[in-house]
Amino acid sequence: MSAVALLREIADVGRDRRRGGYSRHAFDGADAELRTWFVEQAERRALSVETDRNGNIWAWWGMPGPGAVVTGSHLDSVPGGGAFDGPLGVVSALHAMETLHTEGFRPTRPLAVVMFAEEEGGRFGVPCLGSRLLTGSLDADQARALRGPDGVTLAEAASRSGLDPARFGRDVPALSRIGTFVELHVEQGRGLIDLDSPVAVGSTVIPHGRWRFSFRGQGNHAGATLMEGRRDPMLPAASLVTTARRIASGVAGARATVGRLVPRPGGTNVIASTVDVWLDARVTGDDRTRSMVDAIADAARQAASEEGCEVTIAEESYAGGVTFDPVLRKRLAGLLPEVPELPTGAGHDAAILAEHVPASMLYVRNPTGISHAPEEFAEDADVEHGARALTEVLRNFST
Amino acid sequence: MSAVALLREIADVGRDRRRGGYSRHAFDGADAELRTWFVEQAERRALSVETDRNGNIWAWWGMPGPGAVVTGSHLDSVPGGGAFDGPLGVVSALHAMETLHTEGFRPTRPLAVVMFAEEEGGRFGVPCLGSRLLTGSLDADQARALRGPDGVTLAEAASRSGLDPARFGRDVPALSRIGTFVELHVEQGRGLIDLDSPVAVGSTVIPHGRWRFSFRGQGNHAGATLMEGRRDPMLPAASLVTTARRIASGVAGARATVGRLVPRPGGTNVIASTVDVWLDARVTGDDRTRSMVDAIADAARQAASEEGCEVTIAEESYAGGVTFDPVLRKRLAGLLPEVPELPTGAGHDAAILAEHVPASMLYVRNPTGISHAPEEFAEDADVEHGARALTEVLRNFST
Repeated sequence: MSAVALLREIADVGRDRRRGGYSRHAFDGADAELRTWFVEQAERRALSVETDRNGNIWAWWGMPGPGAVVTGSHLDSVPGGGAFDGPLGVVSALHAMETLHTEGFRPTRPLAVVMFAEEEGGRFGVPCLGSRLLTGSLDADQARALRGPDGVTLAEAASRSGLDPARFGRDVPALSRIGTFVELHVEQGRGLIDLDSPVAVGSTVIPHGRWRFSFRGQGNHAGATLMEGRRDPMLPAASLVTTARRIASGVAGARATVGRLVPRPGGTNVIASTVDVWLDARVTGDDRTRSMVDAIADAARQAASEEGCEVTIAEESYAGGVTFDPVLRKRLAGLLPEVPELPTGAGHDAAILAEHVPASMLYVRNPTGISHAPEEFAEDADVEHGARALTEVLRNFST
Repeated sequence: MSAVALLREIADVGRDRRRGGYSRHAFDGADAELRTWFVEQAERRALSVETDRNGNIWAWWGMPGPGAVVTGSHLDSVPGGGAFDGPLGVVSALHAMETLHTEGFRPTRPLAVVMFAEEEGGRFGVPCLGSRLLTGSLDADQARALRGPDGVTLAEAASRSGLDPARFGRDVPALSRIGTFVELHVEQGRGLIDLDSPVAVGSTVIPHGRWRFSFRGQGNHAGATLMEGRRDPMLPAASLVTTARRIASGVAGARATVGRLVPRPGGTNVIASTVDVWLDARVTGDDRTRSMVDAIADAARQAASEEGCEVTIAEESYAGGVTFDPVLRKRLAGLLPEVPELPTGAGHDAAILAEHVPASMLYVRNPTGISHAPEEFAEDADVEHGARALTEVLRNFST
């Protein structure tokens, strides 16, 4: 079955009628449906399936063991996300396995497709949750206590879906089996439009992190409370939005975004008591990322203080800059001679794994240049082009 | 039963564990429980109960008819609101009826306690929903189409709770029965603290309205999208917050508040596609309110345009300034000689009714000066003071 046809199979799962696009989050209904679908697809291709301690699902061709060639991505989405971010890598991997199998190919190393849990952090706030737990870059206690917007903790949600959260944590056996990891992913910017190519090989990922700014003031009546003397946390929250824009615009290549902002209680006629604001910040170079965030944090503290509010700042996640394995990239360049290399500002499970095993990525052109939104797209021809490239890579690496 | 004891009876209904305080909204579970409780309390006091076409509940002593002396308030809350805003007026009214009944008092006019639907607009966005529908100041078609954050329309919610929304609208028979309306309410500012008095008589309510600003930009990936060329609706939304503060601070006695702001899709690593911002604005004088809102709207359009975003602005509700009936206030002053008069910036059902029937209010001191927040409070002694004052007013007016 083609990658395009596989994508079509899940086109109705987790549609978000309010936001548009898809909302598929760890251990929710859509996620459960997608997990079941993935297992069925894997079994239909005679792959043997296992769910690891951290909720990632592995589908093996051959005996699981060291030196494995592993590919895969994720099936969860941001809230109101597109159809390709994540699923494209999973369906391309399933298609590649099927193609190789049909051709009568006999791998000399184990091959696996992995589906990572909660790559987007859409429910529990930490992106690459499954790969971070697997590699130990996220502490298991910290993970278990993560809480979604519905108040349910990751431990509770995982338990309800049949996992044992007590077993969360660095999974050395699972990690040590990976000889090479290659993730195919839809591109999330305009790089391949500009390069006029359907596919690229990943070179670097810039550092990125998430910080939660919690402003606390004094909730009150919007009509009975005069302007003077208000301690309204919406003011420093708004200031953070404009300051992040101003500071990031002054740093070459920097990105700083506030896409999530939650005033509480959130009534029209109510001065908020608290406002939580999430800052997503990324710049090439760990020092530059840290110093940009420090500057934004200083301005936020100043704005809070001017309004008589308090602010606490929590780093919810941080991933340093990654350069994908140069030897692996050279092999990919040799196999895919017309294919350019491309840096990215987007984070990926492959970048988390890259600190532990040789890893790289293939990107597929996105003609809108838009991602994390319903407009995210890939032409059928480009999807097939990407799936063929991945098939060749897997064939070569496991020969 | 004392007003304090009656309040205690509903102290556990609709607690909001996430926001603190109470969230009781039209036709939700807490509201249904409070409606049942109100009907039981009324029947226990031998009052005859009817729910009108617009979901307001009336409890009558004597035959419903013209010239009635009516008191009451509401049982719904803002999200995360206090225990007194609304319920204090209802329990004081129930207590007054019981006291007069126990004393063997025989009213010469019908007396009624009314519980108005959705005074806060916490679910469907329009405050004083029940009294606005009753008086015809809100169009029934418009009301039926109002939609809560869960996507359910008012018509649907009302139907599910047994009302026929086709019957919504101006209710002349119900309105024409009201000879006098007096609402007791917790004070929502610091007026009675400053006046050092437990109770006041309402004099005026300043104009107030709600406007929804919907900013639309281009959703995208927070990491893969460079700063230049972004069309991020969070920027003009943040600008609206700071502009509203700046403009209102320059207008004597003005209040402008953004307490509700919803970015969509609302992901940390997602540039928002749309941001809805609600502005609550109030100034003495309709012209001054309108001109302040016009100035804020002009600035919002400018900020949206600078970011390449679009904005639409919808007036969700507006209530002109109200001066409570001078004759009625004089009668109240005669009955309650030590009691000062007090203007307010808060809207009330009594102010909606005041355009149609003689209406006024009694306020009870709030020692925190805070309302629409869990800190809202009234001392037991002040609650009892207010309930006694209301009892005397009802006795006198219905003699």
